[in-house]
Amino acid sequence: MDAASEQSFRYHQVEQRILGMIESGDLRSGDKLPSLRRVCSSMRVSMSTATHAYEELERKGVIESRPRSGFFVRTRFRKLLTPKKQQPQSIEPTEVNRIQLIRTVLDTIGDRKLIPFGVVTLAEELLPTRVLARLLSKVAREHPGASAAYETVAGNYELRRQIAFRSLDAGSSLGPDDLMITAGAMEGLYTALMGLTRAGDTVLIQSPAYYCFLQLLEGMGLRAIELPSDPNSGISPADLADAVKRFQVKLAILCPNFNNPDGSLTPQAAKREIVELLAKREIPLVEDDVYGELYFEGARPDTFKSYDTKGLVIYCSSFSKTIAPGYRIGWMAPGRFLAKTLEVKATTNVCVASPTQLAIAEYLRVGQYDRHLKIVRNALMRQMQGMQLSIGEHFPHGARVTHPKGGGVLWLELPEHVDSVKLFFKARNAGISIVPGEVFSTGDNFNNFIRLSVGGVWSERLQKGLETLGALAHECCQE
Amino acid sequence: MDAASEQSFRYHQVEQRILGMIESGDLRSGDKLPSLRRVCSSMRVSMSTATHAYEELERKGVIESRPRSGFFVRTRFRKLLTPKKQQPQSIEPTEVNRIQLIRTVLDTIGDRKLIPFGVVTLAEELLPTRVLARLLSKVAREHPGASAAYETVAGNYELRRQIAFRSLDAGSSLGPDDLMITAGAMEGLYTALMGLTRAGDTVLIQSPAYYCFLQLLEGMGLRAIELPSDPNSGISPADLADAVKRFQVKLAILCPNFNNPDGSLTPQAAKREIVELLAKREIPLVEDDVYGELYFEGARPDTFKSYDTKGLVIYCSSFSKTIAPGYRIGWMAPGRFLAKTLEVKATTNVCVASPTQLAIAEYLRVGQYDRHLKIVRNALMRQMQGMQLSIGEHFPHGARVTHPKGGGVLWLELPEHVDSVKLFFKARNAGISIVPGEVFSTGDNFNNFIRLSVGGVWSERLQKGLETLGALAHECCQE
Repeated sequence: MDAASEQSFRYHQVEQRILGMIESGDLRSGDKLPSLRRVCSSMRVSMSTATHAYEELERKGVIESRPRSGFFVRTRFRKLLTPKKQQPQSIEPTEVNRIQLIRTVLDTIGDRKLIPFGVVTLAEELLPTRVLARLLSKVAREHPGASAAYETVAGNYELRRQIAFRSLDAGSSLGPDDLMITAGAMEGLYTALMGLTRAGDTVLIQSPAYYCFLQLLEGMGLRAIELPSDPNSGISPADLADAVKRFQVKLAILCPNFNNPDGSLTPQAAKREIVELLAKREIPLVEDDVYGELYFEGARPDTFKSYDTKGLVIYCSSFSKTIAPGYRIGWMAPGRFLAKTLEVKATTNVCVASPTQLAIAEYLRVGQYDRHLKIVRNALMRQMQGMQLSIGEHFPHGARVTHPKGGGVLWLELPEHVDSVKLFFKARNAGISIVPGEVFSTGDNFNNFIRLSVGGVWSERLQKGLETLGALAHECCQE
Repeated sequence: MDAASEQSFRYHQVEQRILGMIESGDLRSGDKLPSLRRVCSSMRVSMSTATHAYEELERKGVIESRPRSGFFVRTRFRKLLTPKKQQPQSIEPTEVNRIQLIRTVLDTIGDRKLIPFGVVTLAEELLPTRVLARLLSKVAREHPGASAAYETVAGNYELRRQIAFRSLDAGSSLGPDDLMITAGAMEGLYTALMGLTRAGDTVLIQSPAYYCFLQLLEGMGLRAIELPSDPNSGISPADLADAVKRFQVKLAILCPNFNNPDGSLTPQAAKREIVELLAKREIPLVEDDVYGELYFEGARPDTFKSYDTKGLVIYCSSFSKTIAPGYRIGWMAPGRFLAKTLEVKATTNVCVASPTQLAIAEYLRVGQYDRHLKIVRNALMRQMQGMQLSIGEHFPHGARVTHPKGGGVLWLELPEHVDSVKLFFKARNAGISIVPGEVFSTGDNFNNFIRLSVGGVWSERLQKGLETLGALAHECCQE
């Protein structure tokens, strides 16, 4: 570690320690913080490091300095509870009909003038744009022919080789020939549905689920069964066992690692049980793992794919959430359905663009990715903490927010009678984009929820945005 | 024109004149050609130009030099007739079931070790690979952020603006907001089908039609009505009128300009009539115009879109056949179905990759495209002539071949009892890729046809390949 990283690491440790004390209740609203001198001696950091950490906490609104008295936990700061699992009244296959609302939401979150709590994408400052531009330029100049020519339908071999290497971290040992490159993870999901379902089929999804899944199901005329997801523990194998017993399920789509929007992480044992339950009935399982690399603590969470002995798990992921959404490079490991997915890909758009495949293959080959991921994880975690604190301060009594262990979104529950679609329009008028809970389900469970995306660069503008949003939520409470 | 282009233009004129005399019958097999001196004086070219032209014709096998006697039309040279329109026994909606065979064909034509009469793609020497690499490198370095970020679902605005300018040549006046960028024309077609049809619907296609269309229809569970296409005049409005009267047609997919594989050009009046016939019944018409820019004479042929007054024509094209298949950049003008197609695109793969969009926008902006297209058209036309002559020489009696006025394929009819799938396997074993006629239709009309692709660079290797293929066709005749 160089000197600068070392210092940044140390000051971050101090910050974490203080936040931990507040979260655990050791420090409460109004309490005086340990003096800077004490921090220096107890944590063995320099005075400048300790000062920097306190300044940062002050900037985030967690603490305040009082002249000649020291630092105090801000009076209005409180830690919010995590939303509970929302149990639907009944679990039945339903027609999906959210497209109109989703369309409005998509129009809004694409608007770059708004404060961006809508679209889930890393802040541009965090994307390795210059390195990628250099590599893109390099591969284009060194291989002008290859970059202009069609790639194979499966995708660039070197890229698949590099991705296969990384699959070991996630508990699978895939080879290049097990993989197909896709234009983002969304195309992997689409390809699986296109190849394995027909209009009228019933598909199992998580509830809440990423609204693009609902939009896709609706477009394809599929019916959805929604399994309640618990922000703390994701999908329960018991719920799933019950659903597959009662209904003829054609396929399941689940996001076990940091589900968008509830950030839930399905535990290892549950993952294994789910794979086994579905395998018994030969039901294919589409695994969305776009956030798998964005864990905040410990090791990379494992995947459904790592328990897949029958080739029934169709694993989908991408580089869109970590390095370059605009390169449109994802991949899938479709197990026994590889021939089918290759065919769908060939008839949809032949293959993925060559230059961006070559550039990302090179990025992985030169070993930049892991170092970059560390920076991104740290940035996302810190922004989430800042937002959680700010939400605690500015949002109405009774609000809850998730405390995910990874990913890129917060899921915020407002008092029951708040209509989050109203809040969405109010926010849009105030120059802020958010996503209302209603689009994440076919039911009414989440009509008082909103999703806030986390781009990894916490700023005054965002802080102000949350403050305004909190005020608008208060308004909604009074209506 | 610089001196080198001037000379190349002149020698090409001489070559064309001689070929014209052979085609018209003024010069027959065994006839003596005008002396080089006479060519020089009558056509006002230099001796070196005339000599070069004769050498070129000799290399193509059209003429031969006899020591001390001059040049003669080769004895075995003959001009083949164009295949006739194949009238199916009846026109009825049919299930599509060609996927197995198409899969085998696709595996073969992707094999780069084979002599490439299979896949329709320009020879690498003809693609502007270095210019594109330079532009890709430029846009990546100048706009690292934009090239890493998501584009809008509709696609890069400057690219759409450039494409809109060009639409005037094709008789339409489209604006940037009428267009959506797609990953190749195939994705345009797919998007239209996905948005506007459901499994079980009946779709009108040309017969023969590009096999990827059949593969897509089969994947989507659609039924096909095949309208016979005439290599000389494409689709007949009368046939179409009859079909839409008799059946409930959900949508039509037609390729009016140099249809793949029969190279047919549907005349202007017929185009207009077809658009009007379909509009009367509110039937959407998907227009595949990927070869529209590759005309060999006169002006650019017009499009269905130019007669579209009701927004029912969904125009699809791409840059894959002209500058860079691997960039995966196409576009569509979906008329009244724009909102629907945007939605399908968003749920399939969100948007097209940014860097390749930026690079092609820049390529169009700097005005390189038209100059490049001239070179490509000329090269394709000349290779087709060479191949037609060689086919005349080496293929069995009774063979016919198309004489298209543009595009990138020749369509070859063999004597009726020849099984082109057998020929396909024989050719593969001999190191040559071709596509058997059977994959271009759900019926048996084309079981004695093969498609030969034209990459624009005629070489000894290709010439030898055709010779071998002719010998194999002779074998098939005797079986």
